[in-house]
Amino acid sequence: MSVVTFLRGLLGRRRPIAAEGTRHVVALCESLLGQRGEVSGAALARDTLAAYRGLDKQSREEFFDVLGEAFAPSPEAIGRAADAYRFDPTPQNLAQLQEVLDSARQELFRRLNMAPGGTQALVDMRREVLRGVDKHPGWRSIELDLLHLFRSWFNRGFLRLERIDWRTSAMVLEKLIEYEAVHAIQGWRDLRRRLEADRRCFGFFHPRLGDEPLIFIEVALTRGMSAQVQPLIDVNAPISAPGNLDCAIFYSITNCQEGLRGTSFGNLLIKQVAEELKRELPHLKTFATLSPIPAFRRWLKRTDTQVRLSMGPNAEERLALLERIEEPGWHTGEVPELLQKLITRLGAWYLTQAKQKEGEEPFDPVARFHLGNGAALERLNWLGDTSAQGMERSAGLMVNYIYRLEDVERNHERYFGEHAVVASRAVEKLAAKCVLGANPSKDKDAAA
Amino acid sequence: MSVVTFLRGLLGRRRPIAAEGTRHVVALCESLLGQRGEVSGAALARDTLAAYRGLDKQSREEFFDVLGEAFAPSPEAIGRAADAYRFDPTPQNLAQLQEVLDSARQELFRRLNMAPGGTQALVDMRREVLRGVDKHPGWRSIELDLLHLFRSWFNRGFLRLERIDWRTSAMVLEKLIEYEAVHAIQGWRDLRRRLEADRRCFGFFHPRLGDEPLIFIEVALTRGMSAQVQPLIDVNAPISAPGNLDCAIFYSITNCQEGLRGTSFGNLLIKQVAEELKRELPHLKTFATLSPIPAFRRWLKRTDTQVRLSMGPNAEERLALLERIEEPGWHTGEVPELLQKLITRLGAWYLTQAKQKEGEEPFDPVARFHLGNGAALERLNWLGDTSAQGMERSAGLMVNYIYRLEDVERNHERYFGEHAVVASRAVEKLAAKCVLGANPSKDKDAAA
Amino acid sequence: MSVVTFLRGLLGRRRPIAAEGTRHVVALCESLLGQRGEVSGAALARDTLAAYRGLDKQSREEFFDVLGEAFAPSPEAIGRAADAYRFDPTPQNLAQLQEVLDSARQELFRRLNMAPGGTQALVDMRREVLRGVDKHPGWRSIELDLLHLFRSWFNRGFLRLERIDWRTSAMVLEKLIEYEAVHAIQGWRDLRRRLEADRRCFGFFHPRLGDEPLIFIEVALTRGMSAQVQPLIDVNAPISAPGNLDCAIFYSITNCQEGLRGTSFGNLLIKQVAEELKRELPHLKTFATLSPIPAFRRWLKRTDTQVRLSMGPNAEERLALLERIEEPGWHTGEVPELLQKLITRLGAWYLTQAKQKEGEEPFDPVARFHLGNGAALERLNWLGDTSAQGMERSAGLMVNYIYRLEDVERNHERYFGEHAVVASRAVEKLAAKCVLGANPSKDKDAAA
Amino acid sequence: MSVVTFLRGLLGRRRPIAAEGTRHVVALCESLLGQRGEVSGAALARDTLAAYRGLDKQSREEFFDVLGEAFAPSPEAIGRAADAYRFDPTPQNLAQLQEVLDSARQELFRRLNMAPGGTQALVDMRREVLRGVDKHPGWRSIELDLLHLFRSWFNRGFLRLERIDWRTSAMVLEKLIEYEAVHAIQGWRDLRRRLEADRRCFGFFHPRLGDEPLIFIEVALTRGMSAQVQPLIDVNAPISAPGNLDCAIFYSITNCQEGLRGTSFGNLLIKQVAEELKRELPHLKTFATLSPIPAFRRWLKRTDTQVRLSMGPNAEERLALLERIEEPGWHTGEVPELLQKLITRLGAWYLTQAKQKEGEEPFDPVARFHLGNGAALERLNWLGDTSAQGMERSAGLMVNYIYRLEDVERNHERYFGEHAVVASRAVEKLAAKCVLGANPSKDKDAAA
Repeated sequence: MSVVTFLRGLLGRRRPIAAEGTRHVVALCESLLGQRGEVSGAALARDTLAAYRGLDKQSREEFFDVLGEAFAPSPEAIGRAADAYRFDPTPQNLAQLQEVLDSARQELFRRLNMAPGGTQALVDMRREVLRGVDKHPGWRSIELDLLHLFRSWFNRGFLRLERIDWRTSAMVLEKLIEYEAVHAIQGWRDLRRRLEADRRCFGFFHPRLGDEPLIFIEVALTRGMSAQVQPLIDVNAPISAPGNLDCAIFYSITNCQEGLRGTSFGNLLIKQVAEELKRELPHLKTFATLSPIPAFRRWLKRTDTQVRLSMGPNAEERLALLERIEEPGWHTGEVPELLQKLITRLGAWYLTQAKQKEGEEPFDPVARFHLGNGAALERLNWLGDTSAQGMERSAGLMVNYIYRLEDVERNHERYFGEHAVVASRAVEKLAAKCVLGANPSKDKDAAA
Repeated sequence: MSVVTFLRGLLGRRRPIAAEGTRHVVALCESLLGQRGEVSGAALARDTLAAYRGLDKQSREEFFDVLGEAFAPSPEAIGRAADAYRFDPTPQNLAQLQEVLDSARQELFRRLNMAPGGTQALVDMRREVLRGVDKHPGWRSIELDLLHLFRSWFNRGFLRLERIDWRTSAMVLEKLIEYEAVHAIQGWRDLRRRLEADRRCFGFFHPRLGDEPLIFIEVALTRGMSAQVQPLIDVNAPISAPGNLDCAIFYSITNCQEGLRGTSFGNLLIKQVAEELKRELPHLKTFATLSPIPAFRRWLKRTDTQVRLSMGPNAEERLALLERIEEPGWHTGEVPELLQKLITRLGAWYLTQAKQKEGEEPFDPVARFHLGNGAALERLNWLGDTSAQGMERSAGLMVNYIYRLEDVERNHERYFGEHAVVASRAVEKLAAKCVLGANPSKDKDAAA
Repeated sequence: MSVVTFLRGLLGRRRPIAAEGTRHVVALCESLLGQRGEVSGAALARDTLAAYRGLDKQSREEFFDVLGEAFAPSPEAIGRAADAYRFDPTPQNLAQLQEVLDSARQELFRRLNMAPGGTQALVDMRREVLRGVDKHPGWRSIELDLLHLFRSWFNRGFLRLERIDWRTSAMVLEKLIEYEAVHAIQGWRDLRRRLEADRRCFGFFHPRLGDEPLIFIEVALTRGMSAQVQPLIDVNAPISAPGNLDCAIFYSITNCQEGLRGTSFGNLLIKQVAEELKRELPHLKTFATLSPIPAFRRWLKRTDTQVRLSMGPNAEERLALLERIEEPGWHTGEVPELLQKLITRLGAWYLTQAKQKEGEEPFDPVARFHLGNGAALERLNWLGDTSAQGMERSAGLMVNYIYRLEDVERNHERYFGEHAVVASRAVEKLAAKCVLGANPSKDKDAAA
Repeated sequence: MSVVTFLRGLLGRRRPIAAEGTRHVVALCESLLGQRGEVSGAALARDTLAAYRGLDKQSREEFFDVLGEAFAPSPEAIGRAADAYRFDPTPQNLAQLQEVLDSARQELFRRLNMAPGGTQALVDMRREVLRGVDKHPGWRSIELDLLHLFRSWFNRGFLRLERIDWRTSAMVLEKLIEYEAVHAIQGWRDLRRRLEADRRCFGFFHPRLGDEPLIFIEVALTRGMSAQVQPLIDVNAPISAPGNLDCAIFYSITNCQEGLRGTSFGNLLIKQVAEELKRELPHLKTFATLSPIPAFRRWLKRTDTQVRLSMGPNAEERLALLERIEEPGWHTGEVPELLQKLITRLGAWYLTQAKQKEGEEPFDPVARFHLGNGAALERLNWLGDTSAQGMERSAGLMVNYIYRLEDVERNHERYFGEHAVVASRAVEKLAAKCVLGANPSKDKDAAA
């Protein structure tokens, strides 16, 4: 689609633009796409972004409306180009169709990207669009166009892995405090503890986003594979010398840029960090996560799970026991051994057998991530996370997913090929001991 | 188009792949596009590129054949997706069509880009494809896909302007010697003179290409606007203190990466460098080029030009004079004043009036570049370049295109809007004095 | 003195070394000064410093005793060399005397400096020695030798002025919090406010001390010359755009390395920072401090000051008024105008007239620093610092010393030549209105 | 000595200063040492150095005369201070003597060092003084004072080891071409070959000297210990992959700063480079030099050597053979086996037995350096250097001194303790076969 069509699209809208500010930004966008944009691109892009940033909420929504609407590549033009290719599939005809399709909006974004800070501004714009797209379905095309560009701009080849430690700029460190969502960082003292000699932190950075991490991961170096997360994030924990530690525990991984949703870096990050650590500390033997099971209790409460729980041997006792965990603080006093066994077995069954409604992948999102990434389900840890959130979502359980570098490729292939959940013997045994009733609804989702 | 289709495309080729090496590279490409590529992308990409680099000429050509052929997005699939959008033009249907169109080959290139040195390898690959595409039209789709990616990856926002001087790495400097095509650099001593206190050199660099400049520009700081290029590149010229100089002369601009053809940085470079110089040396008054007229003599020899020259007043005398410049060394002895006048006027006429066959833009490529870029044609310089090449192409003439920062936008718009060639009064007068016969063929190209 | 003599000195001590650890460190020092030190200097230096760091308090004191004692350049050798020069004052004889004098301890320190982190270790060693030298006069020679070396190593030519802001490493920033003594920094939020757009912070760094600042200065950019410090360090103060501000207020300057006492950088720092700010913000008009008068109340309580206060006109009223400021919180309620006048005038008199017992320099240490540095006493500010410390030492008064770059040299020369205190008319008037009794003891110190 | 005395010294010279320029520089030096120097040190230092640089040869010599003369610390003052210490050897009296001794000239240099480029200027000043000191003995005190400062400023702890390769700044590389004296570099192509994958180059840099190396070393990675230098510096030699090479040959080491003579870095450099290489290429087995024997033929021609050669068995034959090597090009044709044996044995004898006239160290300066440094004499190489210089000085012989990191300390101690020359069995055997006449003159120098 040509730039001219886009401009005509902008001008030809039936409803006139209401807000003065929005009109101004749209006019600047037109200039940027026109001749002036070719000459004074960077300066014009900067002005356009400044004007855009100055819009109030309402004007900004109107701007997104215009932006989402303006691009309507003529169905006829597309149809014609597609027909041409259909009858004569040459590279030229393909390129022609590609060009008709290529959005003037994308060209607008490419030119905005010339402004200082342009990339960050576009990432932030997509975040805002994503937050509103459910209410404003017309904005969908905006975020799709941005995603298309980001997939190119944020190609992994352009990312820089950087160690983050106490020498890092405060500007970056402050963002860690702000972004960390898994185990919130309680201010600078807490942060500092997480950057001491027996901890590691790494992030991916992009040359154009400067001090903004895209994603970061926190690692604890430990003696033996950690079963509980509280000691790892205890600000008063004594500091160990890394020479004595044989285990790297990935205990938190955080995506920082909501506007980059759909461009995944996490799997790459874990592997690069594992290699980096191996280089620095060749005596490390185990690379494993300490992860929550965030959808476990939600799954327990689903109707079909409840039906299953109410069937099979000892169903009554089981339900009575499970009622306990509804009481706040149930885990702080004496916990019946039977309850511990029950929960752990249910956890093992859930992780290895419960599937998503559609597809064959595990019900649990964290399990999907690590297993799909080639890790193996190694161990379940009773009361591994006793924080409010840990109890509420995971019933206190935590999992170690283990990354054996030599198995990662094969595990990944088995996961995607045969939907195999690679688990240790111990976890498989636990799951086998979990005797539940037959799947009442035969719904896959209910994990027959 | 899905990855699977691509693989099927690769496998389903009628002719089997002849060379062992090519088969190996193709197999690696398949892995890279498959599950393994998602897990071990960077390592696999590195291996694939290494194997590709190891191919001999013939195997490499076969690989390009496969690569160009393998991707044939099913005309039916495209037709269907295009029809869906034609009848229901939603963003989703558009995205769907986009995806069908998105080349698995592009995905392959995106994954290859993860390898260390991947970007450079792809740029070099396109250079090779471009060199052979005339003989192998099937390769066209390869270079178009790469160009599509490069337009995104080499967005101006990602480029870094850097001053190049004697403190710069020898690795970069050596490339200047290698690449400079306008006024060849005769070794390190010559280079060093071009980086002294009264010279400047700047280049655009991309974070992923490291020491490889994309483009660089050479500037001489002078007192008054230079009319001749030989003193500027004289290795023995005395060095002036920049404080006394009021003029920045852009005397050479070189594109370094043949594989990036089609992604233009030159116009941006000139403006950024002018701003940079203005900041460093606020007393600079004039920013101008000293440029060749590379197609001047070619144009003189065209049939229609010859016809025109043979008409009008004094035609005979004119042709007799012009015959002189066919003799080698004609400019070294006494040159008749009439000849000087004739050539200068013809040059002015050529630059202001002679147009391309198609379109209204000037016949001369360098004129197109600078005028389109917003510069004005300021002055013609008799015997401005007496090198063999200068005499052969430009009959020794050189031009100063002047960049007045405040006029650049307007000039650019007039150029593209009204096809206006903005020239100084002096140049216009010279052109007006050039009395030629009427355009014999009325062909635009013949510069009526 | 030769290395051998030093070793003999170490060995020949009458009292044997008591602590095992001390003996070990001394043995390492001997090796380091011997042949092995020439070959494996860096490694040996590192081991020696490690062993030294491992000493407990008592062993360390013993080590200092040995170190202070061991070097006793033979009075005879020195006498001989001095006599030689006395009778034949050649450069060679001078060099000879110099060498006899040059301490083997200094050579030891030079070799210790080769260890990674050696310079910092020696600076820290001197800090420790300085803290104990009053109780252990034998340690004096240690700190003098170190000072001699530091004067060379920390030559101003080797220092690097660096801006400190929110992009700076947390490791450096944390030291600011730790070291700032004038107006203590209350954690990271406070620090961050002090690094916002209307604040500046600069420090001197030494290439060998890495993240350790030697000294740093805090500056507030303000509209008009600040009279009160509390608004400057208010963590909730609104942030101004620097473009609107015309005044740079140096409100805190902190020496970080106690071990470098005697090597002064402060005067240089202020001037370099003023120049740096002038470059960045050419519209700044005033460079001034906002300083305490730390010895004011101490001076008020001196016997001779008290005698003077009890004489002259209105002495009784004056003393009665002054008694008020002994009550805590006296300034929070209504303050009699007479009291305000009295204190301000006394402050002006004190700063311009009160001298040190020996010499002609001002009694107040901060006044000595800035006046000696070429600044002028510009203004006194009533209740300029209402913090507990500000009330207790300065009776709440603060001073603006002004740095007019064009007067600094002359002021400095007048200060050292004629003991002139350069003050504004306003301050001089205030001082003149302060009618005190005649100097009772005629002691200079009492500031007649 | 106080600054005042120095000034008086300057003013009280009997001969007035002749040159206007010299007077100006001296006046600036006075200012710099006075009050103004304390305030405006850096600016004044810059002006002083600029004026100094502007002096012509004659004025500069006069300036050195003044500088050398002006400082004459009063013999009486020194005598008094020395006496005070003699009778009461307290640290205070020592410090007092030290201060009397401390040269105002040194203080002048310390202040000059504050200027941008000050350190380099002082290093260059000492170079100039050293070149003239034989003719102007009065300048000696200047260079001694500078050396005293440099020993402090260029403490090894302040030096930075840096790899030099083709990525290094051209400004640094150009200095390599300029400075290399052992095996001259023939332009940029030659330099580039010396920085390829199978070569290494390292230098020491000082933070204040920027792009100026203090010293650099060239290393060839080879398979087996090199016996000949020409292949190592052959610009057309094929490049090997470092993975296959087991030997690091140090074939050239160059001191760059004549003005730093007397501050030795070479021994440290070799060891740091060996460690660095070991880290990068753990498979390297041998670290050795390929060195000339620069004083060999000079020694052969000494009278006492000649006498010895004319005695013992086969003396006549021996002398006849040795006459051959006086003919130019003698080594290019057939060389009698006897001559080869004779020269090699004489070389071995020379290196292991021939001593300096005074002291017990080897006659050969390169041998002194490497043996004192802890290396062992491993092998002699017939026709190891066939360049004109190699033939003229070393009769074509070259030596491998081997650095076995585990023996270096012991060798060094044996060398300085017992004057032991640690040599391989092979070299010792060769030396033993060299049957010369008894030492005629019993002169140690003749190495009986």
